Amino acid sequence: MELIFLGTTAAIPTSSRGHSAIAIKYGDEIILWDCGEGTQRQLITSKTSYMRINKIFITHFHGDHLLGLPGLIQTMAFAGRSEDLHIYAPHGIKDQMDRILGIGEYTLSFKIRIHEIFHGYEVEGKGYKIKAIRVEHSIPCFGLVFEEKKGRVFLVEKAKALGIKPGPMYKKLQRGEKVKIGERWIYPEDVLGEKKKGIKIVYSSDTRPCENVIRSCENSILIHDSTFDHDLLENAIENYHSTCVEAANVAREGKARKLFLTHISPRYKTVEKLLSQAREVFRNVEVAEDLMRIKLKSKDFER
Amino acid sequence: MELIFLGTTAAIPTSSRGHSAIAIKYGDEIILWDCGEGTQRQLITSKTSYMRINKIFITHFHGDHLLGLPGLIQTMAFAGRSEDLHIYAPHGIKDQMDRILGIGEYTLSFKIRIHEIFHGYEVEGKGYKIKAIRVEHSIPCFGLVFEEKKGRVFLVEKAKALGIKPGPMYKKLQRGEKVKIGERWIYPEDVLGEKKKGIKIVYSSDTRPCENVIRSCENSILIHDSTFDHDLLENAIENYHSTCVEAANVAREGKARKLFLTHISPRYKTVEKLLSQAREVFRNVEVAEDLMRIKLKSKDFER
Repeated sequence: MELIFLGTTAAIPTSSRGHSAIAIKYGDEIILWDCGEGTQRQLITSKTSYMRINKIFITHFHGDHLLGLPGLIQTMAFAGRSEDLHIYAPHGIKDQMDRILGIGEYTLSFKIRIHEIFHGYEVEGKGYKIKAIRVEHSIPCFGLVFEEKKGRVFLVEKAKALGIKPGPMYKKLQRGEKVKIGERWIYPEDVLGEKKKGIKIVYSSDTRPCENVIRSCENSILIHDSTFDHDLLENAIENYHSTCVEAANVAREGKARKLFLTHISPRYKTVEKLLSQAREVFRNVEVAEDLMRIKLKSKDFER
Repeated sequence: MELIFLGTTAAIPTSSRGHSAIAIKYGDEIILWDCGEGTQRQLITSKTSYMRINKIFITHFHGDHLLGLPGLIQTMAFAGRSEDLHIYAPHGIKDQMDRILGIGEYTLSFKIRIHEIFHGYEVEGKGYKIKAIRVEHSIPCFGLVFEEKKGRVFLVEKAKALGIKPGPMYKKLQRGEKVKIGERWIYPEDVLGEKKKGIKIVYSSDTRPCENVIRSCENSILIHDSTFDHDLLENAIENYHSTCVEAANVAREGKARKLFLTHISPRYKTVEKLLSQAREVFRNVEVAEDLMRIKLKSKDFER
C-alpha cells in the first residue's frame, strides 16, 4: 500500500504546498483524507487515479480541508463516473453537500452517499477499517485511524502437538473453522494466538495535542498537525493547532513507529527548525512534503 | 500594466496547467477574469497580491471557471480583508454566491457586491473600462473587453496656427476646457483630433468563433478559446469550443494585434500542433502558459 501526501500547508497555500489532502492506496482502492482546494490537480500530478476514489473523509469544515470537493466531484462527473461515492464527515455534512453540489452548472452522473461520523465511528473496507476519533480543534474535528485487518498468529507448535498435519486443516483453522482429529474436535481458539499487527496510519487532522490521538497511535505511522515551531507555542494554543514538539511528544507518548509533521504554516521557507526541534523528542520524524509517497508493507508492522 | 495567465487548461487540470483565470494588473489594481479552482495558489506562486483584487469577473458558471472563488474569498477573509469585493457574473450569480459563501466555517470580514452582467454591460475603473460581450457557449457566457481610457490626440500644428503657446493653455485644452486668445475663445474641439488608442485586451472565454468577439478585437491582445486543434473541429462544435485555427481566423478577421490561445485540452502534451496550425492563418500568435506574464504599454497600441 501507499500513502501519498497531496497537500501539506496550513490555511494558505504556497508555491510548494497545497491545501490538506492525503491519499491512501490500498488494494484497488484509493481513500482520500481531506480534500482541500487543488486536490484534483495534485491527484493528477501524482498520477493517482481520482476515478478509483470511493471514500472521501472530511475531518472538519474549514475551507482548507474541504474546498477541493466540488471540483473533484465535477471532474469525476465530467469523466463519466457511475459508481457511488461515499463521503464521511462530521454532523452538518448534508447541508454542506447541498451547497457544494449546487455550485456551477454540470450533470452529476453518479450517486453520493453521505455518512456522518462521530467519535468511535468505524467504516469497514476490503481488508481494512477506518475509525474516527474526536480531536481538539476550534470546530468539531476528527482524527482518522486506518488499520489493516489481520488474522491471528497460527501457533504451529501447538497444532503439531495436537496431531494436526500442515495442509488443508491448517487453512480451515486459520479461517475460523473447527476440524476433527480422530474423535476429537479441534477449535480455532486451540491453535490461534494473538492478533497479528498490520499497517496502521493515524492522522490527527487539525488539533491541539490530545489523549485520543495518543491512545490510538501505538505502532502507527502518525501524521500530526505541526503548524508551528515550538517558539510559537502561543500561536498554536490560540489557533487550536500543535507545534512540532507537541506532535513529537504525542508520537513518543503514544509509541508511534514514525511521525510525519504536516499542516505546515506558510511562514516556513525551510523545515529545518521544525525537524530539529521535533527530533529532540522523537527520533523517527520527517516533515511531509507535497507529492511525497510512502510505501508501507504489512510485515514491517509486525515487529 | 501586466497580463498574467494563471490557469490555461480546459475542464481538467494537468501538472502544468491549472483551471481558467487571468489577472490584469493596472495601476494599483488587480482585476481577475475567471477564478477556476487553484487560482489563489497561482496568485501566490506568481506573487500577485490577492489583497489588491477588487473586481472579479466570472464569465460563466462552469466549474473550471468558478470553483476557485470560495477558497479565494476565505483566504481574503483569513488575511483580514476589509474592503468590498465586487463580483461580476451572469444572471444567477446571487444564488451561486449564496451557496459559495455557505461552504465551510469561517468569518467573512468584508462585503461582497454582486453585479449581474449582460451583453453591453460596462464597468468603469480608474483609467479603464471593461465591457461584457455575449459569446456562444453551451450555457450563458460572456467575453470581456478591457480598454484603457485615453484622451484625444492634441493637434500641435493647429494649436500653433491659432496662436496658442505650449504650456498651461495646452493642458487646459487637453483637459477639455476652453481658453481665450485675445478676444477669441478657442475650444478643445478646435485642437483635438481623434481618440488616442490605449491598451486593449479581449478575452473570448469559452465559445464558438463568434461575431461579437470579431467586432470587438481590433487592435487588441486577443485571448481566445483554443480547446482543440483543427483536426478535432467536430469536438469543438459539439462542446461549444473553438479550434486553434478558428481562434486565428477570429484574430485575422477582427484585426487583433496579437493572439494568445488558451483553454488548452489536457490531451496536448506539447503545443506545437496548435501553434503551427494557427500560425498559418495569423502570424502573431502564442499559446498561453500558466504563470506567463505579458507587459503591455499604452504607446505600443497607438500604432
